[in-house]
Amino acid sequence: MTEPTRILLEENEIPTHWYNVVADMANPPAPPLGPDGNPVGPEQMLAIFPGQILEQEMSAERWIPIPDEVREVYKIWRPSPLMRAVRLEKALGTPAKIFFKYEGVSPAGSHKPNSAVPQAYYNRQAGIKRLTTETGAGQWGSSISFAGQMYGLEVKIYMVKVSYHQKPYRRLMMQTWGAQVLASPSDQTQTGRAILEKDPENQGSLGIAISEAVEEAAGRPDTNYSLGSVLNHVLLHQTIIGLEAKKQFDKIGLYPDVILGPCGGGSSFAGIAFPFLADKAAGEKRASNLRCVAVEPSSCPTLTRGTYAYDFGDASGFTPLMKMYTLGHDFMPPGIHAGGLRYHGDSPLVSQLYHEGHIEAVAVPQLATFEAGVLFARNEGIIPAPESCHGIRAAIDEALRCKETGESKVILFNLTGHGHFDMTAYDRFLSGQLENFEYPSEAIAQSLAHLPKVG
Amino acid sequence: MTEPTRILLEENEIPTHWYNVVADMANPPAPPLGPDGNPVGPEQMLAIFPGQILEQEMSAERWIPIPDEVREVYKIWRPSPLMRAVRLEKALGTPAKIFFKYEGVSPAGSHKPNSAVPQAYYNRQAGIKRLTTETGAGQWGSSISFAGQMYGLEVKIYMVKVSYHQKPYRRLMMQTWGAQVLASPSDQTQTGRAILEKDPENQGSLGIAISEAVEEAAGRPDTNYSLGSVLNHVLLHQTIIGLEAKKQFDKIGLYPDVILGPCGGGSSFAGIAFPFLADKAAGEKRASNLRCVAVEPSSCPTLTRGTYAYDFGDASGFTPLMKMYTLGHDFMPPGIHAGGLRYHGDSPLVSQLYHEGHIEAVAVPQLATFEAGVLFARNEGIIPAPESCHGIRAAIDEALRCKETGESKVILFNLTGHGHFDMTAYDRFLSGQLENFEYPSEAIAQSLAHLPKVG
Repeated sequence: MTEPTRILLEENEIPTHWYNVVADMANPPAPPLGPDGNPVGPEQMLAIFPGQILEQEMSAERWIPIPDEVREVYKIWRPSPLMRAVRLEKALGTPAKIFFKYEGVSPAGSHKPNSAVPQAYYNRQAGIKRLTTETGAGQWGSSISFAGQMYGLEVKIYMVKVSYHQKPYRRLMMQTWGAQVLASPSDQTQTGRAILEKDPENQGSLGIAISEAVEEAAGRPDTNYSLGSVLNHVLLHQTIIGLEAKKQFDKIGLYPDVILGPCGGGSSFAGIAFPFLADKAAGEKRASNLRCVAVEPSSCPTLTRGTYAYDFGDASGFTPLMKMYTLGHDFMPPGIHAGGLRYHGDSPLVSQLYHEGHIEAVAVPQLATFEAGVLFARNEGIIPAPESCHGIRAAIDEALRCKETGESKVILFNLTGHGHFDMTAYDRFLSGQLENFEYPSEAIAQSLAHLPKVG
Repeated sequence: MTEPTRILLEENEIPTHWYNVVADMANPPAPPLGPDGNPVGPEQMLAIFPGQILEQEMSAERWIPIPDEVREVYKIWRPSPLMRAVRLEKALGTPAKIFFKYEGVSPAGSHKPNSAVPQAYYNRQAGIKRLTTETGAGQWGSSISFAGQMYGLEVKIYMVKVSYHQKPYRRLMMQTWGAQVLASPSDQTQTGRAILEKDPENQGSLGIAISEAVEEAAGRPDTNYSLGSVLNHVLLHQTIIGLEAKKQFDKIGLYPDVILGPCGGGSSFAGIAFPFLADKAAGEKRASNLRCVAVEPSSCPTLTRGTYAYDFGDASGFTPLMKMYTLGHDFMPPGIHAGGLRYHGDSPLVSQLYHEGHIEAVAVPQLATFEAGVLFARNEGIIPAPESCHGIRAAIDEALRCKETGESKVILFNLTGHGHFDMTAYDRFLSGQLENFEYPSEAIAQSLAHLPKVG
């Protein structure tokens, strides 16, 4: 009864710096390459990103200061609580201690505003008036809509057409925050018009929406583009999660034995895990046996079944080539409900750390993730987003292993967001309409055969 | 930059007692009456409520202890933050300091679990296995589903049929927490079957759903009924809101000049205001000029345009008679989006305090509440529930008056919940489809003519 359930920090304990894992990597990150095989220079990126973001993207400094103006907005929901899942532990009968960092307390309901807010801030500082971005299910789009509003930036969102019509609630959230939301492909860009001319009924894709958002940003000096995962600066911003969690564990005199996080583009996993990897890199004894495990859907098993190679960041081949684990840029993951994890690749930093053996990965099937989510909701009250259910599944599996071995490990997972806009997914699960997807190796080999030639 | 935005409390600062305003009332509360005009005895209530709840309902003790097992569950989201709306203040250009207590952090997304949790606990303690209740839009239904799950109680919800079909997301939330949800009128009760026999297409009403839930609870010894507002014990449980807020103001050395809260059945308004009224009753100097203002929709203006009289608690006349402000039990408020405020009456305690001049009331029109909600969301990030927008509207009006007079008043309002399940209401507002409703006095006089005769 006396062990704390929620470990809180005061707002003056919000970290003053983000942690940059690059400073502690044995090898420098493989650079992004242009179509000619040469590293992409900053001048090409400056057409769509502000200078301070680009500096962060390339930086090897260990600590990057968080501007006061960003910390002021973080205070709306940060520090987020570190919570002990005591009822879940009891239900599992495990001797393990299960903790989770709850990022669903942000206005947009997920960890995404951790990067949306500084991105909006740096763009505003650079004199930018408008931001464009793409969104699928809407987690990122709603976060950047909220963040833009905090600094008086206009926000224009290209939302994949099928989601625009099927998932109106996140769209309405963006509009309530004053953003302009368009169904992509749209008539606002050359890319969109060309596609609609050929196929007026085209339902859109994330690749098309990225192209539209980048095209508009590149063509207007008052407008920049912003991205919600994969890139180094996004991962950097997300380290606020793990940095807070470390302070919170210090308060109760514990340290995690294993850290788990859902992994799509990689930013939420990096956000919770990287600050603890710093302890490992520094040779801290308490971190010597720490395991960090990226949890991906078995329907989109990038780290566990993909290849470490240069590939395009988007489906259509518009972006620079990035060295990463990939299933091939034209790999089409099935329509699972964890839309945020349906990405063919993975962040270059997460990929390199996995390749070099510093982190682990595991893939979990869809039905098992929803089972875990419902068990969690019925014991801990919070209904998790389908993406978040992946981390919960892996945490439960760890806790059940502890039950067998009798170990009382400290398990930490990142509860990246709530599921308030995903209730139909729970409906389909509870009524038995969901299924698992496993890819035959030949299907993956087929899309990997289309990897671009470098140079 | 150094003034705090969020004032937090540690979980060991959760109050140990609820505050019972009855202890400080000049006159004892008018008792509920049976159809014969005599006070309703506890024996009739014991068929549907556990003894400890009934004791609280009748108690005149000032402080009622909160059981440890309830405080343990409160810790999932309590203490809730007290927040300063600094960006809203700037946008309004007001010298006022605007604070709000944010109750949307609970798993169900509103203040309702503050009472659902102890109600489930006391029923479990009394050996009850099942709870029934009614729900309209689903705020209460989802809260009792969550709370029942925390103590291993089965929960059965009669949900007004039109909402069951039109608002599936809160229903899915209840089902995710393991509750059984039925469209009311249903075939499970005599009341429901009788109605369906006459009118198979009946779309239901809160009155019918109450009758079904009470009928089932009265007929089964293992089953009790629970209610989410109006009654004394519900208001008592909600005082946790104001008790925490007082501790939080103490931390920053401030005290509110005016407290505002949306008012339908009265529990959330009472929850934030009553603990401050205690200071007034105790003759504390800091509270001598404090104003507490209940904010109601002008489409359902119970306190501002109703009559103080004995009336039924439900539309159909099944409940005991309660002395309260009422528009008449057959007053049919229009289908505004703030469904939680569409109640013909008001809690007897709130009504009596209003009648005796201890609190004030104001009515605000629907469009003005959504304007306030959007302004709030665009400045403070949080998208409020339509009910909560009423408190925000009144707080903004106070702040604008301060701008005229130059006073830097401390304004406190209760942000009772988030609007994640109300995005279609925002859509209708943003696209100009919403309107105001004002009742001609004759319409109100007509329903007031049907007040029951007492004795």
